[in-house]
Amino acid sequence: MALIVQKYGGTSVGSTERIKSVASRVARFHRQGHQVVVVVSAMSGETNRLIALAREVSPHPDPRELDVMVSTGEQVSIALLAMALMELGVGARSYTGAQVRILTDSAHTKARILSIDEDRIRRDLGQGNVVVVAGFQGVDEAGNITTLGRGGSDTTGVALAAALSADECQIYTDVDGVYTTDPRIVPEARRLRTITFEEMLEMASLGSKVLQIRSVEFAGKYKVRLRVLSSFEEGGEGTLITFEDDENMEQAIISGIAFNLDEAKITVEDVPDRPGIAYQILGPIGDANIDVDMIIQNVGHDGLTDFSCTVHRNDFGKAMKILREQVAPHIGARNVSGDDKIAKVSVVGVGMRSHVGIASKMFRTLAEEGINIQMISTSEIKISVVIEEKYMELAVRVLHQAFDLERAPG
Amino acid sequence: MALIVQKYGGTSVGSTERIKSVASRVARFHRQGHQVVVVVSAMSGETNRLIALAREVSPHPDPRELDVMVSTGEQVSIALLAMALMELGVGARSYTGAQVRILTDSAHTKARILSIDEDRIRRDLGQGNVVVVAGFQGVDEAGNITTLGRGGSDTTGVALAAALSADECQIYTDVDGVYTTDPRIVPEARRLRTITFEEMLEMASLGSKVLQIRSVEFAGKYKVRLRVLSSFEEGGEGTLITFEDDENMEQAIISGIAFNLDEAKITVEDVPDRPGIAYQILGPIGDANIDVDMIIQNVGHDGLTDFSCTVHRNDFGKAMKILREQVAPHIGARNVSGDDKIAKVSVVGVGMRSHVGIASKMFRTLAEEGINIQMISTSEIKISVVIEEKYMELAVRVLHQAFDLERAPG
Repeated sequence: MALIVQKYGGTSVGSTERIKSVASRVARFHRQGHQVVVVVSAMSGETNRLIALAREVSPHPDPRELDVMVSTGEQVSIALLAMALMELGVGARSYTGAQVRILTDSAHTKARILSIDEDRIRRDLGQGNVVVVAGFQGVDEAGNITTLGRGGSDTTGVALAAALSADECQIYTDVDGVYTTDPRIVPEARRLRTITFEEMLEMASLGSKVLQIRSVEFAGKYKVRLRVLSSFEEGGEGTLITFEDDENMEQAIISGIAFNLDEAKITVEDVPDRPGIAYQILGPIGDANIDVDMIIQNVGHDGLTDFSCTVHRNDFGKAMKILREQVAPHIGARNVSGDDKIAKVSVVGVGMRSHVGIASKMFRTLAEEGINIQMISTSEIKISVVIEEKYMELAVRVLHQAFDLERAPG
Repeated sequence: MALIVQKYGGTSVGSTERIKSVASRVARFHRQGHQVVVVVSAMSGETNRLIALAREVSPHPDPRELDVMVSTGEQVSIALLAMALMELGVGARSYTGAQVRILTDSAHTKARILSIDEDRIRRDLGQGNVVVVAGFQGVDEAGNITTLGRGGSDTTGVALAAALSADECQIYTDVDGVYTTDPRIVPEARRLRTITFEEMLEMASLGSKVLQIRSVEFAGKYKVRLRVLSSFEEGGEGTLITFEDDENMEQAIISGIAFNLDEAKITVEDVPDRPGIAYQILGPIGDANIDVDMIIQNVGHDGLTDFSCTVHRNDFGKAMKILREQVAPHIGARNVSGDDKIAKVSVVGVGMRSHVGIASKMFRTLAEEGINIQMISTSEIKISVVIEEKYMELAVRVLHQAFDLERAPG
């Protein structure tokens, strides 16, 4: 008998039919003797409906009141799922975030979980009930309803699993696991049986939006065994997100190829190569609330260097304007150039730590296809390159093949 | 400066436009220097939508879970109204029933309020905020969400007014007050400036469904000054519901004519006139969960008497069957007859206590129109008669005229 936390997203509970099917799955686990805690999101479309209603009344709704409003979406889902479970003869009780005291800070619409009072849940589980908890929401010290921001239901699931020391946290979604890359681009892409938390973080931030990043960080911090599964298929084992010290890890060097078309690159050319220059360039960008992803500055020559960074495409125009009009004249840079027709492609894998030659293999593979690399950035477990946007799909395909990702590691 | 509790029903907050218009009214009171607590219902149609959704999942939804679900209707309304108030520059904070701890018993879907923790509301009012509270809902000792049953938002308003010792509880509805009778039947019907609680109770239970009965009882018990007003008209003074010892009472003998087409009468004929016979007749009716309204038994003769009662028309067939098949043979009654084409018409007024001749004036008025009286029942402040259904409108009209109700007293 295990204690399992299952999380179902908006599409998984998108209609009363779907809710009944979730109930059947939960009931099956329950009958197998497991203790089950279920976390659900709002029915798909409901959160947007509520936000639209709020905007009819107030173009910029008060965040506290928006949380009061939006949190009703999950409250409807928990009640419906609990009813559906009882209809199948399974004892069930629903709880809002406030009722099981998912204590958060007071940052309305993007709150962070501080603690969970799991006593009530344990008592219900002990009485043989399935416990259904509203995802995405909590309550602050003063009793105000808070929400965790979009995708926060994953975090609720993981936080509950951590608080209950659950044997596994299962995230049910519309994909059946984490893939070596996007199957729409590489049909041979393979579902990973396991992936490490660190790889998952790199994959997620690079565009494989299977899980909310914060929930993965949370799972890593509290050592929660996390599994991604399809809510539409039966019997799949999904992808288990593991710790590096797990015994059963696949011994792959590279786990996957991630990519991203959301960024634009900017280069400040011929910058005087002196201390403090990076701050003088990025300070005004940060002040304008623009996030910077890659930052590259190579060694200078003749007292000058080039400084490059990538920003989200939505911020490209704004960032260019700031750098051209404020920064360049001020620091005496020769020119500011930019390009928003770029792609970032990354190979990700904890194995590369102990294997030399991954970078050279990656660069050779791209060179053989005539793909020019514009920027390079590396971390412990990933190598990212910026290339021309039009080569993105080709790059992903040839890298997937070069690293043998279509074959499961022996 | 006064402390006012205002309650707005589902049609008054039925759209975001209506909510904005409620916000304008509340803002006006607030600017006049009043402290305002607003109680709102779910947007009209929302509660039914939620119940229908629940029924898709479970034909007989679990009451606890139904309350979790249905209570979201008011939660959306409070957030929208608070946003709309802030949009007008008025500080506002919304609270669910649980958040201001409207403590109820655990009778899900029909809970009763036990107490309210008004500290939080007072603190907000002290800071110059309008406080918006979800009607119809509360929380039990164990933290479960409860609802008060249909119409319960009136009760929430009155209970809050009692807890806060408010100067007035204003119930905004789609009529502009309590009338001497239904204006659709008697165009000359007149809005009452005041009505006593006892009269209101008689009027309400007799079919003038302006206020939920429980809220009127509550207001009487805690001496809450209650006023019924239109949410669609500006500047009306509505109808104030007063205590008999108030100074400014209208000195009317009769306040209004109520009527009711929901009942059917049943007579058990030639019943042996012995102790315990009423119980032998009504016991099986009560056991079948049938409510009885009027009960009449006249003095017997020759050891026999007739026993009559009225039941709701929906229960007529069932009650007839029980009395014919079980009761009559058992007690040796000669026959059971019934009629569901009846109307009950009542004159209501605290003034009749000290005025003789009200009954005879009523009976004479009906007799002059050739309307036969089938049953009579009286209480301290009302006289009810059962007549043929087809005479109902005529009876109401002539009585309204006979008691000079179209003219304001004094």
